[in-house]
Amino acid sequence: MAKKKIPAAPSIRRLPSYLHIIQQVLKDGGDYISGTVIANELNLEPIQVRKDLAITGIIGKPKRGYPIKELIKAIEHFLGWDSSRKAVLVGAGNLGAALIGYDGFRDHGLNLIAAFDKNPEKIGKKIQGIEIFSFDIVSEKIKKTSAKLAILTVPSADAQETADLLIKAGINAIWNFTNVKLKVPEHVTVQKEDLSSGYAMLCVMIQADALDKKNA
Amino acid sequence: MAKKKIPAAPSIRRLPSYLHIIQQVLKDGGDYISGTVIANELNLEPIQVRKDLAITGIIGKPKRGYPIKELIKAIEHFLGWDSSRKAVLVGAGNLGAALIGYDGFRDHGLNLIAAFDKNPEKIGKKIQGIEIFSFDIVSEKIKKTSAKLAILTVPSADAQETADLLIKAGINAIWNFTNVKLKVPEHVTVQKEDLSSGYAMLCVMIQADALDKKNA
Repeated sequence: MAKKKIPAAPSIRRLPSYLHIIQQVLKDGGDYISGTVIANELNLEPIQVRKDLAITGIIGKPKRGYPIKELIKAIEHFLGWDSSRKAVLVGAGNLGAALIGYDGFRDHGLNLIAAFDKNPEKIGKKIQGIEIFSFDIVSEKIKKTSAKLAILTVPSADAQETADLLIKAGINAIWNFTNVKLKVPEHVTVQKEDLSSGYAMLCVMIQADALDKKNA
Repeated sequence: MAKKKIPAAPSIRRLPSYLHIIQQVLKDGGDYISGTVIANELNLEPIQVRKDLAITGIIGKPKRGYPIKELIKAIEHFLGWDSSRKAVLVGAGNLGAALIGYDGFRDHGLNLIAAFDKNPEKIGKKIQGIEIFSFDIVSEKIKKTSAKLAILTVPSADAQETADLLIKAGINAIWNFTNVKLKVPEHVTVQKEDLSSGYAMLCVMIQADALDKKNA
């Protein structure tokens, strides 16, 4: 049941921030953008940026760089952000509500069709235009809409049980914001977000800075 | 103003999930844990796990693996999670509230002392025991408490201005949950969390799975 590894994971993770910068330059009226400009903006090496962008199939032109519109298309196509993807959000607590409000989704092809919660006080309400339905009808809704992607923001204690139910209803991709490592069948893709990873990075950077100052 | 790069970033990002598994095994009464057990649990190669753990300075014993208590200490010490760090949270919206409720913090040395918001309706209220103060007194509070770390969950439009103010008050590390790339002086550490990175990974994995099935 070993999941295939995505080899270029760190490159893929950087693509959205490239896209963000490139779209900014497009707005400002640019036609071409060089890897060096992107690199400087993000404190990366230009060679790294060129390598990362190459995974989308695009190659820059010497001296001019990348044609912006083609570059945007290449990145969006590589990420599948140029087509729409129906999704449900399960668990409309604080984190769920924060995610519903996240602007990036619509631009990236994520079509959030409904949210679900067990709390009767929340049911029937809307967050940013997305209605919250009773958790009791989540399976029915998934089957009816053929949504394949679920954003999982339930309490960790409910995570596995909820995931099992969603998968049974037809979900094959879970964006997991709980801290449970879900056990899922082979055909299901899980992306686990872990806040403590970013916090670990921050703590190590703080310590490295403190050390630098001591040695200076 | 180029920030020093942290070379082992992907390894560091994985340490919290190792720690989580190891603590579980400790609870279940284990004395030793092998790199292979951790690797299996997380779908990684055993050699990768051993390399990652080596950055904390610990080396496993042939056949037995790592002594669990020492391993936990080594990871926590490497991450600085064995000492307490005062922090403030600025922007008590949905995401801010979700972060205040995140259990992991206390275990990892993060001592959240106060939250701040501009919305008068929120001021004076408490979320999970953390009081929300007026944004007007954030500088004063930071100076008085000598907090050095700020969690930034304000709207993106306010991000840079807020960061400038926090830094002026003495903050030297920012955990940035806005989608703004902050411009900060050299002595300030910023860790930017970007939801779209994880979403990019998920989308590429979904596409890879779909391709596999087509080719099967």
